[in-house]
Amino acid sequence: MNEALYKKVSQSFEKQGFLRLIGAKIEDVEEGRVSISLKKSDALTQQNGVLHAGVVTALADTACGYSAFTAAGGADILSVEFKINLLRPAAADKITAFGRVIKSGRKLIVTEADVTDESGKLIAKMTATMIPV
Amino acid sequence: MNEALYKKVSQSFEKQGFLRLIGAKIEDVEEGRVSISLKKSDALTQQNGVLHAGVVTALADTACGYSAFTAAGGADILSVEFKINLLRPAAADKITAFGRVIKSGRKLIVTEADVTDESGKLIAKMTATMIPV
Amino acid sequence: MNEALYKKVSQSFEKQGFLRLIGAKIEDVEEGRVSISLKKSDALTQQNGVLHAGVVTALADTACGYSAFTAAGGADILSVEFKINLLRPAAADKITAFGRVIKSGRKLIVTEADVTDESGKLIAKMTATMIPV
Amino acid sequence: MNEALYKKVSQSFEKQGFLRLIGAKIEDVEEGRVSISLKKSDALTQQNGVLHAGVVTALADTACGYSAFTAAGGADILSVEFKINLLRPAAADKITAFGRVIKSGRKLIVTEADVTDESGKLIAKMTATMIPV
Repeated sequence: MNEALYKKVSQSFEKQGFLRLIGAKIEDVEEGRVSISLKKSDALTQQNGVLHAGVVTALADTACGYSAFTAAGGADILSVEFKINLLRPAAADKITAFGRVIKSGRKLIVTEADVTDESGKLIAKMTATMIPV
Repeated sequence: MNEALYKKVSQSFEKQGFLRLIGAKIEDVEEGRVSISLKKSDALTQQNGVLHAGVVTALADTACGYSAFTAAGGADILSVEFKINLLRPAAADKITAFGRVIKSGRKLIVTEADVTDESGKLIAKMTATMIPV
Repeated sequence: MNEALYKKVSQSFEKQGFLRLIGAKIEDVEEGRVSISLKKSDALTQQNGVLHAGVVTALADTACGYSAFTAAGGADILSVEFKINLLRPAAADKITAFGRVIKSGRKLIVTEADVTDESGKLIAKMTATMIPV
Repeated sequence: MNEALYKKVSQSFEKQGFLRLIGAKIEDVEEGRVSISLKKSDALTQQNGVLHAGVVTALADTACGYSAFTAAGGADILSVEFKINLLRPAAADKITAFGRVIKSGRKLIVTEADVTDESGKLIAKMTATMIPV
């Protein structure tokens, strides 16, 4: 864990009402890499009792966004667009999104996230384009 | 509003804990078209006070999924993948996602959603691939 | 047809060796809207004799890129990313990609394209993020 | 190189007129992994003299499609949809697309491709959903 970066990510993270609502938690922060987890609860499910695609996506987007944030020299980050493939039902009790920067440019930062369950099985994969503002 | 389809969509909708959590509401149901809205609250925001990208995405995915559901003859629908472009900050008090089927196949149903604010301004655009199961 | 914009698009278009190779042709140019067509030939097919996904995609990307170009005040345009859904086999003798701007920002231009066959049937749908440089 | 799989991929590959047109070449075939390369020529460029996004995309799509093909037990493969981020101008003399399966299901196969230049620098990244038919 990079403590200086963790502190910066944490300060921004705490301002996000929605992350509190879904119970997202910072797991790790390194330069260009951030992982975020959450635990399943009934309030986060869809009609079959697994985590809603919107929850999985929000977690992946957050991990992507903060991985970009660690590479952006203090600038705030907005999501321009992302695409996610939902590979398996998110039936796990806890999922973690591992975000990483794959290209850091002056104008745009391109990121990816793997979302896995406790056993490391891949549940979803996101590619996201971020913009420093 | 197609009342028979509304009833079916509504029964599935009510099983989704996450849609209750974010306060999503069915606005309209026609064959191949479903619109879903939600109101902004502090619990749904990101660090700048606008709606979190994950909330906008969840709403768009839900509108896409249920538009596919109306075209799938009673089958349950899962999201295979989607891509969303976040075009403007979601600063509105209420947003609505208008989902529609653009290709209904036997194996896959491809959908789109426009997410707009109260004035009809486009906030986000999603393309989503759904699978009947 | 907007003749002044057509001339500018045409000058750039003619510099693209690849568009000559695949026989792409400008059909229409308006502000924020450009359509490009091509005719099927054996050199453009995949293993089943229909147009290769790469050809359909190149046409859609070109229509998106030039629609952004008409909105960018003379700046050159690069594709940041795009996503395409291939809805039907491209078995037609001629296909046309209709590109249009859906959000023109200072930093990024977001575009869409429908690719249709001669009867207007939708073959593919693209969303593309463009950057003026 | 898996020779048995290479032979099957090669037989399909040779039926694709478009791959011949752009000079694509099979580099490696393993179960779940296929790499395809091509050399830059003036006929493959866009207005700035670098490889056209459509060429980069066609190569990535082909590597994704054949990686899925190696995992599909002989079924033919069609591209359902893909998304590509174009990370750097494709100015290299030769580029290679490394496709791999990230989830092989009965109904759909999800794949990724990295496109790199001769030095291994990442030029583009694709995620593609394939369907066995």
